[in-house]
Amino acid sequence: MEKDTSIPEDLKLAVLEKIKPTETERKKLTAVQEELATEVKAAAEKLCVADIFVKMVGSAARGTWLSGTHDIDVFISFPEETSRGELESRGMEIAREVAKKAEHAEDRHAEHPYLNIVFKGFDVDLVPCFRVASACQLKSAVDRTPFHNEFVKTHIKGREDDVLLMKQFMRGGGVYGSELKTQGFSGYLTELLIIHYGSFENTVKAACFWKPGKKIDIMQHSETEHDEPLIMVDPTDPKRNVAAALSLDKFCMFMDHCREFLKNPGLKFFFPPPLAPLEDREFLEKLESRKSSQLAIVFQTPDVVDDVLYPQLYKMEQAAAALLHEYDFSVIKTGVWSGKPETVIMIELISGTLPNVKKRIGPPVWVREHAEKFKAKYEGAENVFGGYIEGGKYVFEVQRKYPTAKGLLEEQLVNCSLGKHVHQSVSKGFEIVEDADVCMLRDLDFRVFLRKWV
Amino acid sequence: MEKDTSIPEDLKLAVLEKIKPTETERKKLTAVQEELATEVKAAAEKLCVADIFVKMVGSAARGTWLSGTHDIDVFISFPEETSRGELESRGMEIAREVAKKAEHAEDRHAEHPYLNIVFKGFDVDLVPCFRVASACQLKSAVDRTPFHNEFVKTHIKGREDDVLLMKQFMRGGGVYGSELKTQGFSGYLTELLIIHYGSFENTVKAACFWKPGKKIDIMQHSETEHDEPLIMVDPTDPKRNVAAALSLDKFCMFMDHCREFLKNPGLKFFFPPPLAPLEDREFLEKLESRKSSQLAIVFQTPDVVDDVLYPQLYKMEQAAAALLHEYDFSVIKTGVWSGKPETVIMIELISGTLPNVKKRIGPPVWVREHAEKFKAKYEGAENVFGGYIEGGKYVFEVQRKYPTAKGLLEEQLVNCSLGKHVHQSVSKGFEIVEDADVCMLRDLDFRVFLRKWV
Repeated sequence: MEKDTSIPEDLKLAVLEKIKPTETERKKLTAVQEELATEVKAAAEKLCVADIFVKMVGSAARGTWLSGTHDIDVFISFPEETSRGELESRGMEIAREVAKKAEHAEDRHAEHPYLNIVFKGFDVDLVPCFRVASACQLKSAVDRTPFHNEFVKTHIKGREDDVLLMKQFMRGGGVYGSELKTQGFSGYLTELLIIHYGSFENTVKAACFWKPGKKIDIMQHSETEHDEPLIMVDPTDPKRNVAAALSLDKFCMFMDHCREFLKNPGLKFFFPPPLAPLEDREFLEKLESRKSSQLAIVFQTPDVVDDVLYPQLYKMEQAAAALLHEYDFSVIKTGVWSGKPETVIMIELISGTLPNVKKRIGPPVWVREHAEKFKAKYEGAENVFGGYIEGGKYVFEVQRKYPTAKGLLEEQLVNCSLGKHVHQSVSKGFEIVEDADVCMLRDLDFRVFLRKWV
Repeated sequence: MEKDTSIPEDLKLAVLEKIKPTETERKKLTAVQEELATEVKAAAEKLCVADIFVKMVGSAARGTWLSGTHDIDVFISFPEETSRGELESRGMEIAREVAKKAEHAEDRHAEHPYLNIVFKGFDVDLVPCFRVASACQLKSAVDRTPFHNEFVKTHIKGREDDVLLMKQFMRGGGVYGSELKTQGFSGYLTELLIIHYGSFENTVKAACFWKPGKKIDIMQHSETEHDEPLIMVDPTDPKRNVAAALSLDKFCMFMDHCREFLKNPGLKFFFPPPLAPLEDREFLEKLESRKSSQLAIVFQTPDVVDDVLYPQLYKMEQAAAALLHEYDFSVIKTGVWSGKPETVIMIELISGTLPNVKKRIGPPVWVREHAEKFKAKYEGAENVFGGYIEGGKYVFEVQRKYPTAKGLLEEQLVNCSLGKHVHQSVSKGFEIVEDADVCMLRDLDFRVFLRKWV
């Protein structure tokens, strides 16, 4: 089994070299943060909004940001007694005032509206929030962020590098990011893991032995049962699981990544070599060697944010597989790729065609009423090959309604339970592309996806 | 639902016209029976065997034989205290003495040996047996026959025609005969049904409502639990189920035959039109319209009696289906045909080919030792397409060992659990014939089987 290797110091240093912000970067960020704070306060004054605080939150404020990322989160904090309407209108007025000096601005919406701007090359979120006494008394989800910020800042000191290493290590394993597309580890979750286990190395070693249901409760104050694979009780809210968005497969992929890394630590676990787009020739060779059926459902990508889009795409992936299964097709695997302008649901099948004949098994002969109804329906009917008794039941060999997966999807896909935006797009039209015709899809990012697929 | 039609008298008469022995037939049979009795007694005397009785048993002796059948059962009954060895040797000596006057003679063997002869055109079994006091004290299975004979003779009077109708009706439904090939209704079982229900019509009407586990106990003396579909407690032996050989499907086929008959009584239920052998052209058309895969396993028919052969063929049919299922092939149905010189196991499949790629699902990632062994076995191995985590488990896409059903059977069929004689024959050689090549099998009886098959 695994040797009890310690992770070489020079490997960690080599990684940090690439990911740790330089002194110059750090100074630039601090300067921009200060400038933004000044701008917000000036805007509030100009708009006669009293009693607001400006808070820098997020990894930039905690010293756990990766070099090359340029994200700043500025929270504009209103007194708790402010009404939600006032918070939103006054908050956004201040943000828009600040945005006058930005290169770009865009309204966004989570639980309430916020403004995303590009300011001196940084990607800045200006977020109005309530100033509540504790994270348990939230008026809105964003209100907890300042509490997270406080907790991390007071506990992470001296372990910022471990956080950086872990974030990059998770990126390398494809499990970093808690958006609904990725369903992986959030930045805050990563920080809490380091706080709990003490270091990058301890976390990696501990994760090798995780089991679903693994619970970490730093403050020993858990108040709720959770059934997610990993339960990281929020130190600022005993009811909340910080790892609620982590899927079982990403949980397992992380464990696998940790085990493989400890067997043979190396840079590739942090910086995996990029995959080249799969070429036509390679795809056709794979088709020939696998001899399965490849099916791509292609449609226009709905114009919504990823957190709205991906849950609908995953739902569609499930729905298509269930439909195929219902009509006797054997699905090997399914996958989702989405780009602009198109989205592709990939499905690999044992076979895209089935024989015309299909066996319908009826009720036992002695359940007289049902058995006779079943027999009357099929006996001598059109498209029935024949019937017999097998295992005490009437069996009829009937004409299969959908002998091809393509025909089934073309006719029935729109009747599946699909999310709103996906349903709208699919209703406007979609195409089923089979086997060698998948080569018609030329998007390079799709071709990278295809390399992992076959 | 079913109308409460009575069965038209003239239909019964029309059937009886064809199946009831004529006065001439009857006289001939009686004369031959008497002659046989005389011969047996003379033979015993000649061989100095004292104290034997001659008993005529079977349907001929009970007046429930169908016209055109020429079966006579002669039991040579020895005192109970006779040793088994003596019974067999002396009994067969007497039988062989009688056989000197026969056109043909053949040794046969059930629980003990008996002689089958052709005597004046009749098919005669000469069977040595013990004379026991009651059917419960049997020394051998054939010893119960005289008790059956007595019971039927004393209870069937006046209802012989109903027995004839029922036997012919069961023949028409393909459920008559308790040999291991047919697994249907024996003559004795048919007689007991008529005795219990009183008439052909009552039996047909009652059978429509049978359920598996249906128990008939004429003497109300059952002593044992049985789990067969029909339990007809032997009036001469409270422990025995006369219907033990009846399969669930033949039980159901009889119920179905009764229901259909009552809906629209007609001669065809007694005398179904014979099926014509399926021609090549018809078979090819059926292949084209079904689009499934047809597979025939062809081998030399072992030279053993049907009661030994058929259980082995049915076992082989099951074993072949299980083997195909184990290797992911989807069986639609299987069938057995046996003739001279060849036997055919027919198998219809969704497809006779599968893709090269096969999905191997391993243990959950968190069951560390098993999961790591599984991963180590497949990762980077030859003939492995790739791996991933799905549903918390390692999954590898590996090269399928048997992508064709033909290849699988050719290599693995002999390793299946087969009966002794079938195994010997299959070991000597067999052929897998696919789809259109099935036309190479030209036996007309096989072609009749094929008409029912497709």
